[in-house]
Amino acid sequence: MSQATPDERYHLITRRLDEVLGGDAIKTLLVQGKTPKCYWGTAPTGRPHVGYFVPLTKIADFLRADVEVKILLADVHAFLDNMKAPLELVGHRTKYYKFVLLAVFESLGIPTSKLTFVEGSSYQLTKEYNLDNYRLCATVTEHDAKKAGAEVVKQVESPLLSGLLYPGLQALDEQYLDVDFQFGGVDQRKIFTFAELYLPRLGYAKRAHLMNAMVPGLAGGKMSSSDLDSKIDFLDPPDAVRRKLKKAFCEEGNVKDNGVLAFVEAVLIPISELRLERAAETTGSNTGDDSGASEEQQKPFATEGAPTGTVFSVSRDEKYGGPMHFSTYAALREAFEKLEVHPKDLKGAVADALLSLLAPIRKRFEESKEWQEVTELAYPSPVPEKKKKKEKVYHPPPPGKGRNANPAAATNTTTDAPTVQSEDSPATNA
Amino acid sequence: MSQATPDERYHLITRRLDEVLGGDAIKTLLVQGKTPKCYWGTAPTGRPHVGYFVPLTKIADFLRADVEVKILLADVHAFLDNMKAPLELVGHRTKYYKFVLLAVFESLGIPTSKLTFVEGSSYQLTKEYNLDNYRLCATVTEHDAKKAGAEVVKQVESPLLSGLLYPGLQALDEQYLDVDFQFGGVDQRKIFTFAELYLPRLGYAKRAHLMNAMVPGLAGGKMSSSDLDSKIDFLDPPDAVRRKLKKAFCEEGNVKDNGVLAFVEAVLIPISELRLERAAETTGSNTGDDSGASEEQQKPFATEGAPTGTVFSVSRDEKYGGPMHFSTYAALREAFEKLEVHPKDLKGAVADALLSLLAPIRKRFEESKEWQEVTELAYPSPVPEKKKKKEKVYHPPPPGKGRNANPAAATNTTTDAPTVQSEDSPATNA
Repeated sequence: MSQATPDERYHLITRRLDEVLGGDAIKTLLVQGKTPKCYWGTAPTGRPHVGYFVPLTKIADFLRADVEVKILLADVHAFLDNMKAPLELVGHRTKYYKFVLLAVFESLGIPTSKLTFVEGSSYQLTKEYNLDNYRLCATVTEHDAKKAGAEVVKQVESPLLSGLLYPGLQALDEQYLDVDFQFGGVDQRKIFTFAELYLPRLGYAKRAHLMNAMVPGLAGGKMSSSDLDSKIDFLDPPDAVRRKLKKAFCEEGNVKDNGVLAFVEAVLIPISELRLERAAETTGSNTGDDSGASEEQQKPFATEGAPTGTVFSVSRDEKYGGPMHFSTYAALREAFEKLEVHPKDLKGAVADALLSLLAPIRKRFEESKEWQEVTELAYPSPVPEKKKKKEKVYHPPPPGKGRNANPAAATNTTTDAPTVQSEDSPATNA
Repeated sequence: MSQATPDERYHLITRRLDEVLGGDAIKTLLVQGKTPKCYWGTAPTGRPHVGYFVPLTKIADFLRADVEVKILLADVHAFLDNMKAPLELVGHRTKYYKFVLLAVFESLGIPTSKLTFVEGSSYQLTKEYNLDNYRLCATVTEHDAKKAGAEVVKQVESPLLSGLLYPGLQALDEQYLDVDFQFGGVDQRKIFTFAELYLPRLGYAKRAHLMNAMVPGLAGGKMSSSDLDSKIDFLDPPDAVRRKLKKAFCEEGNVKDNGVLAFVEAVLIPISELRLERAAETTGSNTGDDSGASEEQQKPFATEGAPTGTVFSVSRDEKYGGPMHFSTYAALREAFEKLEVHPKDLKGAVADALLSLLAPIRKRFEESKEWQEVTELAYPSPVPEKKKKKEKVYHPPPPGKGRNANPAAATNTTTDAPTVQSEDSPATNA
């Protein structure tokens, strides 16, 4: 990104975010010609679903702005989430997550030379980290820890001690991953301000915090959050994707509570814009583009004959006026609100776009024997229970279980851990 | 102790205790001819004072019963107590504690071949221990952790997170020190029952717990707990010991709130009995008695001409009836209550006995260049403050600061940590 100015890079890093804390520190680094480093964390628990496109689309901006991105695969947290899942299983899931996330960036046509994966277990169990954890615990009040986790730790009648520890551990991660900023959903705000307050008390630098807005689930029917069909898996075949999208809650004219529209805003249009920008080479890194993205993958989600600058097209029967083309999300939103765009047509356009994103991911999966093997190990098909002998059979939890498991904004390690734990763990204090 | 029966050994292990939980497990080991293992923990913070004679006298019973005793020097906790004290300083204090405690056992004439010191940092920062700590935190409710620490963690307005962690860490210590029982004061009861509940949930064995009664401080004046003179140091010269004892609260006829009488009951008479037993070779291990205890050290605290079986003598002026000899604590207590023993005479007798216990400790100190050097490093003499330049000078906290710092019953790591922390640490959340 040698051709981009610090201002351009800063714009790319912070655009579309809901909130930025400490942006000046990032600006300073950019002006000094330095490479900012950031981290985003996720716990390798259930199968990641297409909601992960939301944070990954934002991370694509970071990578395009030559930010060094570390994705923390919080395996220790995943293990603690659900102690039924032994460490070995978590290891397989960690591998599965890497396969999926890399394939997503490939599908987005984003080079990943500045992207690294870090497993939590590689440093979270070291002497130094744990001494710092103890030091932090001897500094942090119960009150502050509880307040920090209020948004992301599931509020239950008998909260677990881990819920109080996670904010501190997440703060330490910033130090041990040696980053300049942490990225997450705005639901992480209290965790982030907690880190800003406490890291300096241990003698460590205060980090910047970049937050995505919260985005409702794509395929979530209003009353069906526990429905397996409410999550679209990255490896779902096209018919399953269309079926799930058909069932998604998307009320005519309702632009507020609409996961389908939200997905267009947070994922599809940003990807279109990224592709237009790349085509125009106006912004971002095109060096090292070894992702092998096809030409198809470089086009915005616009149908043939769309005017230049279109970022999203909706096919519509000729009798209703034919296809519509939008150059901004605001325009689409307005049209939907005015009932000019019918939910069925919107869902169709989203399905087409989503399938074009998923196709290279599925292809990669089908070509990789290793990925296929890891999948069977990470998420073994449930064995039908035998009637005679009451056997304990391992049932993997449904993907993205828990209050904040939808990483639409950005899943974070802290988010999932106590949530899933309290639902699935046999160790929960009963 | 090959000559003692399992019953005799069990009696020796459990006598004079306030409470025993899980004694059957210890009995079983003894019947099987096995060597029970136990641990007692103390955080190397302030200079240990003669109140430590109380747990050490009980530990002498364990050693005599051929129990393998591990003394946990909880250096990590000591560091967290007071983060003003860097790890290096804690290292010196750990050495100081070892010197003192070994000298005490020598003074008691107890062989220490079955005694080992373990520093907390040798295992509390390992990967395995910390993973177990996290597992525990994902199992323990805030409520249970708070309840467990209610007696020993200082109850302040803004309690620190560490106070909630300590009960779990102390439970894990039982596993990692590989012991059959933990010894402590009865103020540890809730911590102990917490360990009994939670260790099995991690798949570890439930341990037995032996508890000493709480004993008031020896030299504590009623209103002078913050007075430096209220603690007698192991290395205090005789005149200081006598002066401090003179100031101790010891009201005529008052047998309830009387630290001097309590010291006789919990330390002096047990030591006398141990010496009589050893002389009679009726109980306990005499093998490997390499402590080099002098003949004087083997005698009970009885003056010349005392009848056989005397465990404590009080000198009294001939005009008041001459010396009194007691063969049980009950007899002394009764005599004091009936005003037959005057506080001044009691204090004189206690001072004589205490000085005879301290003399070999001081002698050992004076002969050991290494111990002397460690003392100066561990508890440097306060540098007088210069008036011109406001320098930060390190002031060691007064020995045994904090609610439960008097280890009269048995100091435990959990006890001191959050207490001192909240008073001294600059890192306290203000």
